[in-house]
Amino acid sequence: MSEKRLLPVVPAEATGAPLIFERIAIVGLGLVGGSIALAARRRWPQALVIGVDRGRVVEQAVERHAIDVASEELMIASEADLVILAAPVRENVRLLESLPQWVARDAVVTDVGSTKRATMSAARALPSRLAFVGGHPLAGAARGGLEYARPDLFEGRPWLFTPDDGTSGESLGRVTAFVEALGAVPRVLPSAAAHDHLLAFLGHLPQLAASALMSIVGESVRDDGLALAGRGLMDTTRLASSPAEPWKDVCATSADEIGAALDALIGVLQSLRGSLESGEAIDTVFASAAEWRARLTDRE
Amino acid sequence: MSEKRLLPVVPAEATGAPLIFERIAIVGLGLVGGSIALAARRRWPQALVIGVDRGRVVEQAVERHAIDVASEELMIASEADLVILAAPVRENVRLLESLPQWVARDAVVTDVGSTKRATMSAARALPSRLAFVGGHPLAGAARGGLEYARPDLFEGRPWLFTPDDGTSGESLGRVTAFVEALGAVPRVLPSAAAHDHLLAFLGHLPQLAASALMSIVGESVRDDGLALAGRGLMDTTRLASSPAEPWKDVCATSADEIGAALDALIGVLQSLRGSLESGEAIDTVFASAAEWRARLTDRE
Repeated sequence: MSEKRLLPVVPAEATGAPLIFERIAIVGLGLVGGSIALAARRRWPQALVIGVDRGRVVEQAVERHAIDVASEELMIASEADLVILAAPVRENVRLLESLPQWVARDAVVTDVGSTKRATMSAARALPSRLAFVGGHPLAGAARGGLEYARPDLFEGRPWLFTPDDGTSGESLGRVTAFVEALGAVPRVLPSAAAHDHLLAFLGHLPQLAASALMSIVGESVRDDGLALAGRGLMDTTRLASSPAEPWKDVCATSADEIGAALDALIGVLQSLRGSLESGEAIDTVFASAAEWRARLTDRE
Repeated sequence: MSEKRLLPVVPAEATGAPLIFERIAIVGLGLVGGSIALAARRRWPQALVIGVDRGRVVEQAVERHAIDVASEELMIASEADLVILAAPVRENVRLLESLPQWVARDAVVTDVGSTKRATMSAARALPSRLAFVGGHPLAGAARGGLEYARPDLFEGRPWLFTPDDGTSGESLGRVTAFVEALGAVPRVLPSAAAHDHLLAFLGHLPQLAASALMSIVGESVRDDGLALAGRGLMDTTRLASSPAEPWKDVCATSADEIGAALDALIGVLQSLRGSLESGEAIDTVFASAAEWRARLTDRE
């Protein structure tokens, strides 16, 4: 527990913004859940931030003052007026089933999952006193886990919402104000399906490509070869430190969209492979890539 | 010509290291050729650095004091005792054919190409007074061209050599000393074939993967989607600004090795695609990727 990567200390200077929620329960204290906890405690010192996770993580979170109270049991969230599901997607879906027996009063419930269809669908079974708003902050880091959590993780980053017919406008408004107060830029997408299509290309495909590339390069050239690696390989494979577990949930809950994105990438790679001598595909693919990359850099 | 990206000014402080070559001709003043020119002028102010490229680039190089003399014509290199071929690979191969008619005296000839077999093979036809040493500096940047050249590009970076039966040990020694003086770390590989195999994974595959990914992501989500992109996509596609032309030469001259590397990547992507629901391939690929990436980071 005497690790060097200490969480940033919450400054005592914060006088507290107007409260949007009084008792904020966060289920899952990884990079995103932990960062929400830190950001919320800094923003609203007068609010109670409740953490739920496995014993070891809860201990860590308490020792580092990331949260006010914590437990392994969801029961601790019974008085919450905001519940944030920040576990892997399929665990969030399971949590939605058991939530009504633990959360006793009216509350807003949101999630931070990287796919939205399965979660939005499971949330339809919630009793009306639990108002669900599906969310997804587009903030990450090369490494996950509570030890990398930081209160400014969401600063200037988009936080996507996917309301549907069952979403209360008032709850959406309150959650939107909440994430804005954490520094994020809320964006409402037309549907969970539109979200999952977009993210398959914007987030899920780059992750799978980076991991596949690092795996094949490492297995092929081993340590001796990697000793010669430069910035290009470093950058291209920075995402490849990600653990498998949360990504298995992402892939399983959006297999159709991610499968289509993978097919598209495989198709381009096959066209490159088919004309290495003539260079035909290289011309078109590199021209398109350089053009899109320039638009990306403009906003860097 | 009044651009903001000025080349670093060559400091007047350099008193000049012992000369290894007196008249250094560089054919091709892109990122690598231009950086060699800047580094050599800084290291040996008493040497003559001769540049050969197309008219516009030559003008730029002279205006920015990157070289001492420059021309579009190879004839200007006639008195050189070191000739560095820094054009795209297939142009280097063509240059090797015409070199004997332009370079009048004994000289060492080297190249900086990203594939080595075609160049090493073409160099065998050189007259014995032109001693060829095949080389490849593993130094690059996200953007190419003379305007991004800098004298410290090779600092601490490996510079690979692929001597064969026809390579003179003395010439290899002199070129090795030359690149060490530029700050690089010379490494001799067992063969041009070993080089091309290694680089197919270490350099060529990451480039093709990054360009393919950026192309497919850009075409799929367009500007609205890219506006939401984060650091992960930025990093993974940083190489995707590369122009097609030099890469067509790389791919055409190492199509077998690059093809095999592409097949391996496509195979991993297909195995991921085939088990998105079960996550079996995700487990093995992500575990392997994270392990190799950690070894890469250790030296970062």
